[in-house]
Amino acid sequence: MTRESIGIVAGKGQFPALVARGAREAGLGVVMCGFHGHTDPSLEHEADTFAMLHLGALNKLIEFFREHGVSRLCFAGAISKPKALDLRPDFRAAKVLFKLRSKGDDVLLRAVMDELESEGLRIVQAAELVPGLRGPSGVLTRRQPTAEEWEDLRYGWPIAQTIGRMDIGQCIVVKRGMVVAVEGLEGTDALLRRGAELGGEGCVAVKIVKPGQDERIDLPALGTATMRTLVDGKYACLAFHAGKTLFFDREEALKLADAHSLSIVGLDEAFGNE
Amino acid sequence: MTRESIGIVAGKGQFPALVARGAREAGLGVVMCGFHGHTDPSLEHEADTFAMLHLGALNKLIEFFREHGVSRLCFAGAISKPKALDLRPDFRAAKVLFKLRSKGDDVLLRAVMDELESEGLRIVQAAELVPGLRGPSGVLTRRQPTAEEWEDLRYGWPIAQTIGRMDIGQCIVVKRGMVVAVEGLEGTDALLRRGAELGGEGCVAVKIVKPGQDERIDLPALGTATMRTLVDGKYACLAFHAGKTLFFDREEALKLADAHSLSIVGLDEAFGNE
Repeated sequence: MTRESIGIVAGKGQFPALVARGAREAGLGVVMCGFHGHTDPSLEHEADTFAMLHLGALNKLIEFFREHGVSRLCFAGAISKPKALDLRPDFRAAKVLFKLRSKGDDVLLRAVMDELESEGLRIVQAAELVPGLRGPSGVLTRRQPTAEEWEDLRYGWPIAQTIGRMDIGQCIVVKRGMVVAVEGLEGTDALLRRGAELGGEGCVAVKIVKPGQDERIDLPALGTATMRTLVDGKYACLAFHAGKTLFFDREEALKLADAHSLSIVGLDEAFGNE
Repeated sequence: MTRESIGIVAGKGQFPALVARGAREAGLGVVMCGFHGHTDPSLEHEADTFAMLHLGALNKLIEFFREHGVSRLCFAGAISKPKALDLRPDFRAAKVLFKLRSKGDDVLLRAVMDELESEGLRIVQAAELVPGLRGPSGVLTRRQPTAEEWEDLRYGWPIAQTIGRMDIGQCIVVKRGMVVAVEGLEGTDALLRRGAELGGEGCVAVKIVKPGQDERIDLPALGTATMRTLVDGKYACLAFHAGKTLFFDREEALKLADAHSLSIVGLDEAFGNE
């Protein structure tokens, strides 16, 4: 009897490797594909079978996974957005692209997943293979937010939801009841740097899961790199979506936050409505 | 009989001077105040009476206008936003500030205007003193937007309204059904530069009046500087809010747009809903 293999569509960062290890610990085989210019080729060592494709080669991707007996597939690690504008789609990917009127991230990825599922590949959530990676709710640092910071969180939380609902970005920067900066294609780190530049010391960042987003892909992520950007920008506080955020290197990240009196808070969907 | 004087609260740029000249042509006296570090002091020559105040000196501002017999007052020219975070309010301004939970631009300015009106100073719209400055609806350039550009305008227009409704910013950058960048505190020009960097050639910019915004203050403005930023960023198209946008140096600006095949479009509120 051959063991079941899981397919992993690998993007940037450490997440694909963590998912691969989680899958192996669960007794699964690992069939992984990455993308030239986006995925670290050394990920090959984490997989039983590995291929590098060009972004947009949708047909090859489907054939690769079918060929290696994959029936469950997950997405792990983001594909950097600005480059996605340069993707050269094959005929199949082009068909998906041109069916779409609005080509925001979510719409695009969901259409690709529909296409994969129409080929019998069931999409599962990568995070399920790595228990304990989801950030919990509550204040995770030694320092609690001040009353003013809680106020900024209550002000920013529903605004971030609305921005997300329009498929624009996952993160905003707030200071004293003012939206300082909104994430677009530049990604969270560039946004946080701009926010600190415009708003100065003591800004509050709010990072959410886009409402209605398919949580099998592209969950917001948090780790030491983000923490360093927050420290450099002299942020007061970061709130993230509890239970729906991948919190990498949590112990090290929180140690860094504590060393700089940064307050890190996991908030539930209904925060501010209670 | 002394002639009536109009009060002008002067911010950046040429608008205060244009309003002052318009007022004089209409036979009014001009009492103007500007702010250290924000207003060009040479504006003094456009006024019968002029004072430079510190931003936040609300009580002095009220006294200045009352002392010089002003009963109608208008705001002309923006106060640059990042610096507003550093304002040192006097007791009266502090009272206004601390009454506000949300301190977005509009909320703040409206509270200041309420305070001024409670002192018998009626706030009128500066643009009314300068007929012909409002950008009309329709395509103003030789080049019409392409079908794809119209699609991006239809996609971006309601999104820009929603962003504005949350008092975040007036402008967004769109490309092929994707929001590339959203204006925060950085202002339109910095947003347009970032949008071009992230989205590349052929982006579409949409600039609106924040819905529900008090149009007596802070109407969106457009002129040769914006046009040059659009040209440098290789934009395809800019849409602005027709009838509610101050279009400075229109002839020169449109000549520049035409020289670079840029398409400039005035859109009505209901665009996309018809």
